[in-house]
Amino acid sequence: MVFILNPKVSKEKIDKFILGWEQKGFSTILSVGTEHTAVCLIGNTAEVDLDHVVQTTDIVSYGKRITEQYKAVNRTVHEDNTIINVGDISIGEGFFTVISGPCSVESEEQITEIARSVKESGAKILRGGAFKPRTSPYAFQGKQAQGLQMLRIAKKETGLPIVSEIMNQTQIDLFEDVDIVQIGARNMQNFDLLKEVGKLKKPVLLKRGLANTIEELLMSAEYIVAEGNSQVILCERGIRTFETMTRNTLDLSAVVLLKQKSHLPVITDPSHASGIRSLVPPLAKAAMAVGADGIMVETHNNPAKALCDGAQSLDLEQFHALMEDLKKRAVLEEKEM
Amino acid sequence: MVFILNPKVSKEKIDKFILGWEQKGFSTILSVGTEHTAVCLIGNTAEVDLDHVVQTTDIVSYGKRITEQYKAVNRTVHEDNTIINVGDISIGEGFFTVISGPCSVESEEQITEIARSVKESGAKILRGGAFKPRTSPYAFQGKQAQGLQMLRIAKKETGLPIVSEIMNQTQIDLFEDVDIVQIGARNMQNFDLLKEVGKLKKPVLLKRGLANTIEELLMSAEYIVAEGNSQVILCERGIRTFETMTRNTLDLSAVVLLKQKSHLPVITDPSHASGIRSLVPPLAKAAMAVGADGIMVETHNNPAKALCDGAQSLDLEQFHALMEDLKKRAVLEEKEM
Amino acid sequence: MVFILNPKVSKEKIDKFILGWEQKGFSTILSVGTEHTAVCLIGNTAEVDLDHVVQTTDIVSYGKRITEQYKAVNRTVHEDNTIINVGDISIGEGFFTVISGPCSVESEEQITEIARSVKESGAKILRGGAFKPRTSPYAFQGKQAQGLQMLRIAKKETGLPIVSEIMNQTQIDLFEDVDIVQIGARNMQNFDLLKEVGKLKKPVLLKRGLANTIEELLMSAEYIVAEGNSQVILCERGIRTFETMTRNTLDLSAVVLLKQKSHLPVITDPSHASGIRSLVPPLAKAAMAVGADGIMVETHNNPAKALCDGAQSLDLEQFHALMEDLKKRAVLEEKEM
Amino acid sequence: MVFILNPKVSKEKIDKFILGWEQKGFSTILSVGTEHTAVCLIGNTAEVDLDHVVQTTDIVSYGKRITEQYKAVNRTVHEDNTIINVGDISIGEGFFTVISGPCSVESEEQITEIARSVKESGAKILRGGAFKPRTSPYAFQGKQAQGLQMLRIAKKETGLPIVSEIMNQTQIDLFEDVDIVQIGARNMQNFDLLKEVGKLKKPVLLKRGLANTIEELLMSAEYIVAEGNSQVILCERGIRTFETMTRNTLDLSAVVLLKQKSHLPVITDPSHASGIRSLVPPLAKAAMAVGADGIMVETHNNPAKALCDGAQSLDLEQFHALMEDLKKRAVLEEKEM
Repeated sequence: MVFILNPKVSKEKIDKFILGWEQKGFSTILSVGTEHTAVCLIGNTAEVDLDHVVQTTDIVSYGKRITEQYKAVNRTVHEDNTIINVGDISIGEGFFTVISGPCSVESEEQITEIARSVKESGAKILRGGAFKPRTSPYAFQGKQAQGLQMLRIAKKETGLPIVSEIMNQTQIDLFEDVDIVQIGARNMQNFDLLKEVGKLKKPVLLKRGLANTIEELLMSAEYIVAEGNSQVILCERGIRTFETMTRNTLDLSAVVLLKQKSHLPVITDPSHASGIRSLVPPLAKAAMAVGADGIMVETHNNPAKALCDGAQSLDLEQFHALMEDLKKRAVLEEKEM
Repeated sequence: MVFILNPKVSKEKIDKFILGWEQKGFSTILSVGTEHTAVCLIGNTAEVDLDHVVQTTDIVSYGKRITEQYKAVNRTVHEDNTIINVGDISIGEGFFTVISGPCSVESEEQITEIARSVKESGAKILRGGAFKPRTSPYAFQGKQAQGLQMLRIAKKETGLPIVSEIMNQTQIDLFEDVDIVQIGARNMQNFDLLKEVGKLKKPVLLKRGLANTIEELLMSAEYIVAEGNSQVILCERGIRTFETMTRNTLDLSAVVLLKQKSHLPVITDPSHASGIRSLVPPLAKAAMAVGADGIMVETHNNPAKALCDGAQSLDLEQFHALMEDLKKRAVLEEKEM
Repeated sequence: MVFILNPKVSKEKIDKFILGWEQKGFSTILSVGTEHTAVCLIGNTAEVDLDHVVQTTDIVSYGKRITEQYKAVNRTVHEDNTIINVGDISIGEGFFTVISGPCSVESEEQITEIARSVKESGAKILRGGAFKPRTSPYAFQGKQAQGLQMLRIAKKETGLPIVSEIMNQTQIDLFEDVDIVQIGARNMQNFDLLKEVGKLKKPVLLKRGLANTIEELLMSAEYIVAEGNSQVILCERGIRTFETMTRNTLDLSAVVLLKQKSHLPVITDPSHASGIRSLVPPLAKAAMAVGADGIMVETHNNPAKALCDGAQSLDLEQFHALMEDLKKRAVLEEKEM
Repeated sequence: MVFILNPKVSKEKIDKFILGWEQKGFSTILSVGTEHTAVCLIGNTAEVDLDHVVQTTDIVSYGKRITEQYKAVNRTVHEDNTIINVGDISIGEGFFTVISGPCSVESEEQITEIARSVKESGAKILRGGAFKPRTSPYAFQGKQAQGLQMLRIAKKETGLPIVSEIMNQTQIDLFEDVDIVQIGARNMQNFDLLKEVGKLKKPVLLKRGLANTIEELLMSAEYIVAEGNSQVILCERGIRTFETMTRNTLDLSAVVLLKQKSHLPVITDPSHASGIRSLVPPLAKAAMAVGADGIMVETHNNPAKALCDGAQSLDLEQFHALMEDLKKRAVLEEKEM
């Protein structure tokens, strides 16, 4: 059940309203949208007389029952789209935000060179893996804490906010200077980690698991929001199917459905979805056309020598060409890039 | 192995060249492209000295070994894209061809009304199911031969070429006036049917099976071309995955890969792929952005009362709006609609 | 809706009962079980007063509504299991019937040698492909009509009934001497073919499609039974998943569910399910333990030289050893082999 | 590359041998089997002259190159099967070990009653979830530390060793008295957690992820063994496919392949694989027939009131009946239960 509050209600009144429900044994989630503030009620709401509450509570504009299992991330809670801000960068309605950088941070030179170049081409956020989840224990596991330090330097040099993947909750302190914390596909249902990043005051980029449904992705986002962090960016990055010619199968229908069902921003990762460099530009354009709020694209200054995922990385010129193409399209889509 | 012939070689010389190979026990496929004519050699080509053939045969420009199992449909055979013409309609390079119409032909009035409307909106080809493959024997099985007759009337009224699904080879004579014969997803590996439509002199629209790989789709196209019919249009219409929120998962990466691996035109069917009306417009736009040569969209003059697949059909106004949107995008893509 | 008739009702009374329903616009399916005869009503049964019919019709023992889409194959229609007889061979309750033979019939000598050997080892039915559905048009397509003739000879020599795959309905006459007609996985939803074999008076072995659900398999069986042929044997032969180490993934849960939902016999095909010889014996034993009514196992007198699927074929000694093992297990399962 | 050592080599000689390789920059894994001790070499072994090492090192019996990515868990390292002991219980070759208990520990009475009953029926190990990974943040999350305490009491009362799922590495100290630490399907590629349990001196039960290949499961086991813990039990618990009638699809072929490729014991979990109570006994019997080393079965003293997964839990009588059936079959399989 969700109550949409009247505009400009005082914090005191909201707190009192929330306290009232909590004293009756309900959990609540306060959801501050661009245009509305909403209060979600979690618990046995079957016995709550919705009409009565709306009529007798002056701060409430209207209320709705939420039949889905996901509550706070539900579109019902906010008709307006959530926009997430990182410094002066926005992700969501009206924007097509491009995140770019290497699969793995390899050296200060590598990450700084890439950062400078992708910024010039129009990327707004720098990505770079420091802790790398690898199928084999004998494969390169990332530069770890040192990698985060290199990212920090590239951020300082270019002003680009940074996003990097966290692999477990003991690493949280290390991510203090990371602007957006990424939860990788393999950790989408690492519920304890979701709870921990739910306590942060910064955006979380949540990737869909390889075999997880759209509903499960929303439930994982709900874990984060239920802990108090409503800054969640959803990311479709391909699912596992019987097809072997691509690494995964990019599910662009999911982008449309996620945006219908939820108010959260949704981006795609055409690099991991396909695993093939030549597929990245067409899938990036398709992502924009289908209505995604942005993309995450792997780039490298020397893909042939990349320590990880070189085959799916664009080189810096290819990325530049893609960005030029996307910028033209953004005009048609009436989106800022 | 494929031999690309010099331009403007006489038919006699080509026939003689082919005969020579057939006398040595090889099968051959003659593939007439927009710019080049090629002869594919099928059989134990390991023993053929390619360089020697090229040097000693004056009509041969150059030759290549084809490592893939699909030969005649292979991009190696034609660097230029195949363009298929139906009357004055073209499908392929430079065009974005929209096929539209109801899932099922229901009556003369229904199909004619829809045909007129979609033509006005810009559709170039009329679709309509006469023979319907249905999971249940108790579900509506289509208007059958009568349905084809209704399609013929709509074609006469509007001038639109028609496409309809054939379900088995005993129906071939019934499809004489059908411009494009469709092989449905469930029949993609009905090899005997593929062989029969391979003997026709008209285009075949071949849909990808629900659980068939990109390579298997190309192999099924090869069945048709190997019989002599090189007018094959490939159609990505969604694959079966674990996701249950959509009817199928549209695999747009497949469009890119099919066009890389083969010279045949590729379209998508966003209606069957998603099974949800509101997903059709965004997936149609994504199909154009990713490089498809067209789409097949289900429309109905009264979706709520459709005998089949109403939930995924656009009404005529929705289709018109989608077409207006697509036409703007076609300018950017430099494609004719 | 199904009406279970009293024992020993005369044919005249049943015909009259059926006629009455058909005059009211219903379709009916007469289902003669081992212990009961049942009449299924197809159509808008919502308006039929079931209790009234039972009370006022003396030949009716009781009636039930069938909520599933599959009617005549539904367990509700027969609580007892259907047993299918081919000569003096039985498939169903109380039996574990082994079908064996090569993927492809290659020569009279080959099929006769294999037939003699597998009969001696305890196989009850001989399999052999004459028409072969192959992914590539350039692969061996089977010995066709000649292959059926070779099977007939092997049948005459050994007395084993034979099963072979039909690929399209124009072949029906060729299958006159074939005891069990097989519908392959790729044709499970070739509905016109299902209707044709539904008119035969002989058993049909229906294989599950690579990407078809358990419910769809039952619906395809319903197509056959609805045409009047209730002798359908269901076959689980592996489904397509993301796993690449096996050819397909054998779904043994499907065997249990099919037997719960339907009264038809269910067998498995461990050879096609795995594609790996060493997996066939353990999967065959698992099939028996899970409750299957039999298995279909590919054997060859010289697997290394098989024209088709050699890698998954047991040689004749391996098959003999497997049969010895299975016979011991059949004692525990109280099944006749 | 792996070196199989001669029997009865002194610890000093082995340490010296290992040190030699480590000084050359290789990592090593010491693998102590039932009959052989082996040393795996990890690193750039392409340059190592295997024959030379074998000829010049007196403690080495023979060596082999390992082409697979998984090294220490590879069958090549041990031809004999690994047997894992927990107190006087054995898991592996010659045994069929049944683990049973509730999905969730709910109370001291519940877990003790179940423990007593399943022990009497023949279960050798008690399972019980204390930390529960749930799709919804609003669902019961387990009794947590208190649940582990209840398990400890049940262990003390019955003498049964206990197994419970760990959800993240900060919980490791809480699992001190837990005999076998379980890694759930969703954490199969939580590589940091794998590394941590790799440092424990107790068995780890590693479940296959919902969308993970057989090879990936082996690679995750490799993560644990590479850290020094070779006591890994693999568990096939169903994979995610398009089929919706069961919760997951149990992949029994995986059991056979895992045992061919690796020397580790393999069990199955028919409860989570199917999600349906009536499928558990047939799938349990199939697991034994296919060659599994045991099963993990959910039981409850009152399934209808279970806080979690009641629909797939056997009640105590059903479990008893299953065990009686399995014991008869174990005689045929020559396995101790």
